[in-house]
Amino acid sequence: MKVKLTSIKLRSTAEFQLIKITEDVHKFVSESGIKDGVVFVISAHTTTGIMINESLECVETDIEEALERLVPKDAPYAHAHFLPSYGTTGGNSPGHLKSMLTGNHCVLPVQDGKVVGGHAQDIYFAEYDGLKIRTVYIEVMGE
Amino acid sequence: MKVKLTSIKLRSTAEFQLIKITEDVHKFVSESGIKDGVVFVISAHTTTGIMINESLECVETDIEEALERLVPKDAPYAHAHFLPSYGTTGGNSPGHLKSMLTGNHCVLPVQDGKVVGGHAQDIYFAEYDGLKIRTVYIEVMGE
Amino acid sequence: MKVKLTSIKLRSTAEFQLIKITEDVHKFVSESGIKDGVVFVISAHTTTGIMINESLECVETDIEEALERLVPKDAPYAHAHFLPSYGTTGGNSPGHLKSMLTGNHCVLPVQDGKVVGGHAQDIYFAEYDGLKIRTVYIEVMGE
Repeated sequence: MKVKLTSIKLRSTAEFQLIKITEDVHKFVSESGIKDGVVFVISAHTTTGIMINESLECVETDIEEALERLVPKDAPYAHAHFLPSYGTTGGNSPGHLKSMLTGNHCVLPVQDGKVVGGHAQDIYFAEYDGLKIRTVYIEVMGE
Repeated sequence: MKVKLTSIKLRSTAEFQLIKITEDVHKFVSESGIKDGVVFVISAHTTTGIMINESLECVETDIEEALERLVPKDAPYAHAHFLPSYGTTGGNSPGHLKSMLTGNHCVLPVQDGKVVGGHAQDIYFAEYDGLKIRTVYIEVMGE
Repeated sequence: MKVKLTSIKLRSTAEFQLIKITEDVHKFVSESGIKDGVVFVISAHTTTGIMINESLECVETDIEEALERLVPKDAPYAHAHFLPSYGTTGGNSPGHLKSMLTGNHCVLPVQDGKVVGGHAQDIYFAEYDGLKIRTVYIEVMGE
């Protein structure tokens, strides 16, 4: 069995941002030398998400607005007071909650050295608390 | 290490539908010859979900109604205009958003050639934009 | 390839409770003898969740309150009638729905015998229908 792990760095340029990483994942899988197995895409953060969805600008807009409806910026949050360990006020509770709802990873099969998936399945890194530099792990396991 | 990948086809018969696929998963695991590892169940689509929940008709009703409350059909969606690439109007934004909330895969341990799980854990394919013919991957990895 | 599977028992002491299990996961990984691979954390139940988030009391409060807003206790649920198979009234529909939203597992890379993750990434078992004794599977796969 082989295990190949890498990480990619992403720089978010907005508070909320969907960054398509499908090509990064496909490229790493095809370079991994692993023919049959799975690929995991995992965020290293707690105010971000990983999701699979259709790459259409209007769907991206609906994702942003739906998450804002479900986790409104202006709700009363406990994590909005001074935090000595931060030295500042915690203000990113909506990001933590969006991360909870969308999850921090995805997994897809690998067959014949390629990611298996529907034609509409793009992989997104979701930034909920930008602007930041973020790390995403891509790991292929198989043989 | 062994990797066994298959796909099953499902035909949804309603716009929203929960289709129990527990037996398909258990059968494929027991026929895979893999004793110890994991099984992944992964949808190939972006307006569907995979979930583990208790197989009770009333729970299924509550799942449908809760998702409808969280992602109402009548909210204003950007993905509801004419899409040249579709040749039609995108109208399944709620399906994309339900998919985001429930995720498109599950994973369970495999031990002694059997799926390990609680007695109430059934595996569902969730259709959010039927009627359609759908593909679900079942993959077992282990030894 | 090696596969190591264990289960831990947790006793929840409140109807809603977030129990940090990061240390259990790290310990099992380091004792597994597996250098490179992945670790899965999977709940055996359908009214519980597994999530990765930042371990701050105020974030935990916001998680509880956000889930209560999204899945209110006082909504009308079908799973709130007499169930012959239970011999009692099903009253934990919000727990099933919170489980659907947050998922029942997480996965993290393992490298050099250690869990790979961001410094803020703690692993939580989430109880949505306590008080109960619960089972969580921890499985390491790799080499």
